Amino acid sequence: MRSSVIAVILAIYISSTGAFINPRISQFHNLKQSEARRTFATAAAEADTAQDFDLKEYLIRKGAAVEDALDKSLVVSCPQVKEVTESMRYSLMAGGKRIRPIMAIAACEMFGGSQDVAMPTAVAVEMIHTMSLVHDDLPAMDDDDLRRGVPTNHVVYGEDIAILAGDALLSTAFEHCARETKDVPAERVVEVLRRLGKSVGAVGLAGGQVMDLRCEGKDGVTIDDLKWIHTHKTAALLQVSVAAGAILGGATPEEVELVERYALDVGLAFQVADDILDITASTEDLGKTAGKDEDTDKTTYPKLIGLEASKVEAERLVADAVLSLSSFGDKAKPLLAIADYIIQRKN
Amino acid sequence: MRSSVIAVILAIYISSTGAFINPRISQFHNLKQSEARRTFATAAAEADTAQDFDLKEYLIRKGAAVEDALDKSLVVSCPQVKEVTESMRYSLMAGGKRIRPIMAIAACEMFGGSQDVAMPTAVAVEMIHTMSLVHDDLPAMDDDDLRRGVPTNHVVYGEDIAILAGDALLSTAFEHCARETKDVPAERVVEVLRRLGKSVGAVGLAGGQVMDLRCEGKDGVTIDDLKWIHTHKTAALLQVSVAAGAILGGATPEEVELVERYALDVGLAFQVADDILDITASTEDLGKTAGKDEDTDKTTYPKLIGLEASKVEAERLVADAVLSLSSFGDKAKPLLAIADYIIQRKN
Repeated sequence: MRSSVIAVILAIYISSTGAFINPRISQFHNLKQSEARRTFATAAAEADTAQDFDLKEYLIRKGAAVEDALDKSLVVSCPQVKEVTESMRYSLMAGGKRIRPIMAIAACEMFGGSQDVAMPTAVAVEMIHTMSLVHDDLPAMDDDDLRRGVPTNHVVYGEDIAILAGDALLSTAFEHCARETKDVPAERVVEVLRRLGKSVGAVGLAGGQVMDLRCEGKDGVTIDDLKWIHTHKTAALLQVSVAAGAILGGATPEEVELVERYALDVGLAFQVADDILDITASTEDLGKTAGKDEDTDKTTYPKLIGLEASKVEAERLVADAVLSLSSFGDKAKPLLAIADYIIQRKN
Repeated sequence: MRSSVIAVILAIYISSTGAFINPRISQFHNLKQSEARRTFATAAAEADTAQDFDLKEYLIRKGAAVEDALDKSLVVSCPQVKEVTESMRYSLMAGGKRIRPIMAIAACEMFGGSQDVAMPTAVAVEMIHTMSLVHDDLPAMDDDDLRRGVPTNHVVYGEDIAILAGDALLSTAFEHCARETKDVPAERVVEVLRRLGKSVGAVGLAGGQVMDLRCEGKDGVTIDDLKWIHTHKTAALLQVSVAAGAILGGATPEEVELVERYALDVGLAFQVADDILDITASTEDLGKTAGKDEDTDKTTYPKLIGLEASKVEAERLVADAVLSLSSFGDKAKPLLAIADYIIQRKN
């Protein structure tokens, strides 16, 4: 009994420090306060520089390349697979900002790797993301009939096919990455596949979604619970996207750790910003019903710490994300601009 | 219009020859009939030798090692993942013959590889197999409440958790294989992961299950349809099990092709034997309701070609499987004995 209490306390401690995500403590945690401020001032100046960067043009250009690769990744190879492949394509090609694949490419290029080297991994993370949407929309989960204004996969193809199309998208992500990644040592590909696998498992998407389902409508959900859910349901896939890109680009373990820290902060900031937008934005701007969180009594950052403190928290997270990339200079511009965009966006 | 007709005819031709599974034509297809008979006689003699092999002891010994590795593969790393991990473990540790992992180990050892090298892949194929059972049992699929005499995953944990536990098992299979496979060149691990990914996709488990669902209760299901379904729903995972084991053990591409051919024949024979047992075995022997196929008007081998012809077909498939391994001598004994067991079994 005593040991289980200690285990829970230890787990809460680990969770609050973020150490279970990344057991090695960031170099910044070891800096003295004054040094940290100086490093941050440098990073902030670089973020200003990053604002000159034309993110819109970058997202359009990289997005088009991703769209093309996704389109080529799923083809009907024989008549028997027509239906399942069409169902997979229906959701994979349904649009979206393709932010995860673009982040994978940006991270790879930041370390001198090419877009071509990162593209199969970029396709894989989008397949995984799509699988999670198809399964989350199922009647037994969030029971959503519409996504981005079109009927969800199970509405079009039936629940059975939607479950199988999700399974096939998930497994094809690994096949595609293993088959198509060229011109890098095989050790890097194995490491990327290991991380992709982990990002969907118990300490990834699936675990995050289970905790989210269990906290729904429950009293006493803490800020640590909320952080855990967002870290695993949202940030884990951003984390593996940039980490995989960095690994393929030739980053050292320490460099991979820095981009992971960036992605975890960006992922959390994204969710805090989402919570804020639900309160402050109009339904028109959001493209979905505003104020839905309050109506459904969902635990959110503003509910737990207030609206103003949530805004401060989102800004702090983005500042931390920026800080993590401070040593990479101009090459970090795309990822810095994406971090900035996360809290500036209107929907 | 004409080109699509040609495409369909080509697909049926390819499907009937099995060439779409394995585009390279087996060496045995090029042998003259007399030579084939002589090769077969040698193989049959070897199968007799294989009957001296103590399969029961082998399955118990290897099964225990697999059980141990499975048990260690899923641990609760923090309180937040307790429920999803328990759900994954509930189905993964629910017993079964562990025939796929044992085949992976047998194939690896046949080429001089060790059990340790094959074990992470053995665990991965069992995780994939378990995921397919958990998702197949869902209300939107086969809607089964019981499996091996105990409640199915969704009955215990709910549909939402069962879907997510399946997703987590599937992705963890890749993580585990990538993380735990040691002492072989990384290129082999990438190739194994590629094949594992493919085996669940559109031309694997998921595609086979979609075709099966679509053929249910439908008139005009042909022997080629049935063969396609069994090849992808059942044989594909046996195929990747032995192929992955062989690759890790250092087999050449030609040798991998031979063990794949063995596995496809064994997988198909397994299904034909299942269809036969449903008619000839008692409910007591089967451990499930006998005569269920006829009651549910399911298309089976006996229904399409008759009971006697089905028995001949099962024996022919096993003979072909044995033939594929004829060049490996005594080292093939475990896989030969497993092929034999497939049609001798009573349940």
